[in-house]
Amino acid sequence: MVSNPVSLPSYRALEWQADELTGSLKLIDQTVLPTQLKHIDGNTVEHIWEAIKQLKVRGAPAIGVAAAYGIVVGLQPLFQPGADVSRGEFDQQLAKVARYLAESRPTAVNLFWAIQRMEQVAKDHPQMSAADLQKRLLVEAQAIETEDRAMCARLGEFGASLLPANSGILTHCNTGGLATAGDGTAFAALAHAHAAGKQIHVYADETRPLLQGARLTMWELMQRGIPCTLITDSMAGQVMKEGRIGAAIVGADRITARGDAANKIGTYSVAVLCHYHKIPFYVSAPSSTFDLTLLEGKSIPIEERVSTEITHPGGVQLAPTGANVYNPAFDFAPAELITAIITEKGIIQPVTEANVRKVLSA
Amino acid sequence: MVSNPVSLPSYRALEWQADELTGSLKLIDQTVLPTQLKHIDGNTVEHIWEAIKQLKVRGAPAIGVAAAYGIVVGLQPLFQPGADVSRGEFDQQLAKVARYLAESRPTAVNLFWAIQRMEQVAKDHPQMSAADLQKRLLVEAQAIETEDRAMCARLGEFGASLLPANSGILTHCNTGGLATAGDGTAFAALAHAHAAGKQIHVYADETRPLLQGARLTMWELMQRGIPCTLITDSMAGQVMKEGRIGAAIVGADRITARGDAANKIGTYSVAVLCHYHKIPFYVSAPSSTFDLTLLEGKSIPIEERVSTEITHPGGVQLAPTGANVYNPAFDFAPAELITAIITEKGIIQPVTEANVRKVLSA
Repeated sequence: MVSNPVSLPSYRALEWQADELTGSLKLIDQTVLPTQLKHIDGNTVEHIWEAIKQLKVRGAPAIGVAAAYGIVVGLQPLFQPGADVSRGEFDQQLAKVARYLAESRPTAVNLFWAIQRMEQVAKDHPQMSAADLQKRLLVEAQAIETEDRAMCARLGEFGASLLPANSGILTHCNTGGLATAGDGTAFAALAHAHAAGKQIHVYADETRPLLQGARLTMWELMQRGIPCTLITDSMAGQVMKEGRIGAAIVGADRITARGDAANKIGTYSVAVLCHYHKIPFYVSAPSSTFDLTLLEGKSIPIEERVSTEITHPGGVQLAPTGANVYNPAFDFAPAELITAIITEKGIIQPVTEANVRKVLSA
Repeated sequence: MVSNPVSLPSYRALEWQADELTGSLKLIDQTVLPTQLKHIDGNTVEHIWEAIKQLKVRGAPAIGVAAAYGIVVGLQPLFQPGADVSRGEFDQQLAKVARYLAESRPTAVNLFWAIQRMEQVAKDHPQMSAADLQKRLLVEAQAIETEDRAMCARLGEFGASLLPANSGILTHCNTGGLATAGDGTAFAALAHAHAAGKQIHVYADETRPLLQGARLTMWELMQRGIPCTLITDSMAGQVMKEGRIGAAIVGADRITARGDAANKIGTYSVAVLCHYHKIPFYVSAPSSTFDLTLLEGKSIPIEERVSTEITHPGGVQLAPTGANVYNPAFDFAPAELITAIITEKGIIQPVTEANVRKVLSA
């Protein structure tokens, strides 16, 4: 299947510049969005490590791509002008850089996956010279990036095919180009539908407590010129009742074998509201998001986060000192509330265990 | 029917101190809650005017009570030691003070209602001396306050009778003692249920965009020692799914003849979520909230408020400059999603036009 990304937006979460010996990874500093667009020059592995650690680059696929390029950048200091780098030296430095990068964000599964994939290239080519292997590792990092972009493009095409034209589309949290190397996951469907002239208008939930919808999704939509409106999470029901919404589409952090989809807190409420208003509710995620070892969403452990995310919006205390807070980071939409799950391998509809397994094994 | 307020909490939104000639209205400055508990000494009509204007006192019933006492305070300067105040002078000053206070918040219906009631007392006693009328006006202001407190007490008793014991109760926005002279409207049910040993645990929606739940409801719950937990609005569905919620109770700004209840934005989503989870959804409001000239909720005009309430939570910009925003201040729960409406005249259940008219005319 041939999938083309829609025309690249004016921003790129990450962008490799120059060759394997002098190149660097240019990153958007996502912590200062949406009020500033500042780039980080990832020309040392320490810079890339810090960017991952401090969430300046975020989103599982984007972190993986950043780590892969981080390996290349981390090996560059070996190649001083005139230096004759041995494979032994190279392998030693590779192991050191891999360990270092793995410590930047110890809970990010994609980080380890990308680092291991880079290390595997070295293992698969024991006879290759250090200089050739450095070239080969850049190719691998670029392949990881390209594959991610292609995955986004497929999610975008499948997703856009489901979205109604001339319609409002609700989304929750950020699933856009900032979180991936390409057009994002659920966001890619919005980008493709817009590019295809479907005349959509996106309603972005602000997504409390961390406001990824207000800070990042709105920024991406505006950068791409996609018509959009910001609402609080509590307004989702109202805009549906007013007839403004033709479909909702969200991403996922983990999906079980029966199709229960864990995602940012508030996703479950959106799914119930869609069900009540008979509005299609779509989930878009790469096949790597599925965890077929779990059957039901209730088996997915839910991370509870610090209370200050709720008590101090924008860093300002707006709840009483000592207030008791419940702050689950995720909830899940059960399969029966999901109209379809979009993966790069195809569309799962209706969402049943049989269909999940069929599409994923395609 | 005899109704007693539950033991008064350690705070009072407003409290009259001393007599008709030297007295003043002590007010909580609600704009600095929950991080500071600061009082305003309303010993001039200008102080009370400012408190109303700047939302230091808020909530329809509380504004009415403040304005009534404001009339008394505004007439005090006439009564200098040894002054012999004529009825002519008194009536002139009364008209001036009434006009002045009415300009403090031109959209507050309760403000005009209270001012007119005070003026009516003067009209009803044309022969009374200025000094006696000043005494009589203080009695009238105190009556307005006492009636409001009694109304809250009845809402509290009726409401508490419906709430399940040993259960989590969800509420939205602020309907508490800060907005009234007594225990509030929906909040009164929580206070009474707690006082009656029903072992409830309140889940307070933070209530974006203005966060009245986080700032005011949590503060009141903690002041009264009622077990409580703050959540974001987007978590309401999740806490219901987890089985934590036995009922939801909210206030109302306006209720139609068929029982559609307009209230703070987000109320409609809570009602739909309760419906899906088969959780009772209650509305509590004084009978004065009903507008029997309207049949359906869709006839209620919805105020749209400024976008910065959404783009700048806590005063900090967290959405892109120029972001398009939709900010309806209210939505409404249709009668079919409301299990019962609690009024001081009785409980309307099931919510039908016939039952609304029957209970209100009792």
